[in-house]
Amino acid sequence: MQLHNFFNSSTSYRVRIALALKGVPFDYVPVNIRTGEHRDAKYVNQLNPSAAVPALIDGDFSLGQSLAIIDWLDARFPEPRLIPADRDLRARVLELSYLIACDIHPVNNLRVLRYLETELNVTAEQKSAWYRHWIAEGMAGVERLLGKYGTGLWCFGDAPTLADCCLVPQMANALRMGCDLDTYPLSLAVYRRASTHHAFAAAAPALQPDCATP
Amino acid sequence: MQLHNFFNSSTSYRVRIALALKGVPFDYVPVNIRTGEHRDAKYVNQLNPSAAVPALIDGDFSLGQSLAIIDWLDARFPEPRLIPADRDLRARVLELSYLIACDIHPVNNLRVLRYLETELNVTAEQKSAWYRHWIAEGMAGVERLLGKYGTGLWCFGDAPTLADCCLVPQMANALRMGCDLDTYPLSLAVYRRASTHHAFAAAAPALQPDCATP
Repeated sequence: MQLHNFFNSSTSYRVRIALALKGVPFDYVPVNIRTGEHRDAKYVNQLNPSAAVPALIDGDFSLGQSLAIIDWLDARFPEPRLIPADRDLRARVLELSYLIACDIHPVNNLRVLRYLETELNVTAEQKSAWYRHWIAEGMAGVERLLGKYGTGLWCFGDAPTLADCCLVPQMANALRMGCDLDTYPLSLAVYRRASTHHAFAAAAPALQPDCATP
Repeated sequence: MQLHNFFNSSTSYRVRIALALKGVPFDYVPVNIRTGEHRDAKYVNQLNPSAAVPALIDGDFSLGQSLAIIDWLDARFPEPRLIPADRDLRARVLELSYLIACDIHPVNNLRVLRYLETELNVTAEQKSAWYRHWIAEGMAGVERLLGKYGTGLWCFGDAPTLADCCLVPQMANALRMGCDLDTYPLSLAVYRRASTHHAFAAAAPALQPDCATP
């Protein structure tokens, strides 16, 4: 099994956590999204029509979109399960995951920040304010969801789920960009717990083989 | 069952299609996102901590995030199933759904377009170019996915799935914003099929009770 991904991509990071939690070995294939390797015709046509990272390859089967990959991994390698089977608990896990994957991450990812710089000529301060605005709005929602529905040591219960696979990379990204996350104590507790967990640690950007990519 | 939603919201539209496909009756509760009703403290604290539309209420259970709602509906009202059980087919449906829900829709929704106008003072032409840029990039990916993996009368097979529930509102939104979608023939074929289907027609913005909202 191959994972085509980039060390500093939050969506790649999500899938690396899921693979590490399940103990699934994989070949790490770096795709440098800074130089646009994810747009190369061969990559797009043969591996990932979404023209993005990550892409998982298992024999003849290839799949893009991090949350689709984790759902597929949950069927292929059921232990430990990351998306609960119980209808209502599952809904809570997906709700928080989508808040991050749909409402926070996409507006702050590399391609959007680059468009702001190159097409709209925003200043460094305007770009930073943009980033902080969507983090603040989204993390407030995450914190409210955890306050209302969160239980146990992780987001939902005493074992990591898809919600934790989404939350930790998003917070790591925000901290790297200089955001203050002290006003989100429930989220921070999960983040700190993850920092001592072997699977989350193994998936961290700084430990990936392409982490020195300029 | 209540659906708190807004006629012109693409994420609300997705859930309305799912409910209509399953034939589930619901009370339509309008939430005017143009005037910020989705940020009212009572709505956020009691119904949807994500501070967004849609929110589904079923007795004591409330749930935000359109894709989490449709996943939940698929368990609560299994016929017709919108997210296939088969592992690999399910992956294809989710992959295309996430391309729309994560990569296209979030960067072009109301709150982002408003930020561009009010905080970054972009011109009408710059805002329009922004919108068209992300539609072109995302729809090219949708079209590639359909070309490589699409089958049958709808996106994946001869019955609508979650992918169709996501694609049709996204295309309706793009057409409303003046985008030319003629270069995406596979997507257009699905859109045209949907326009003659009773469930998609019933969910259309123009037929909702709040469609005259200024």
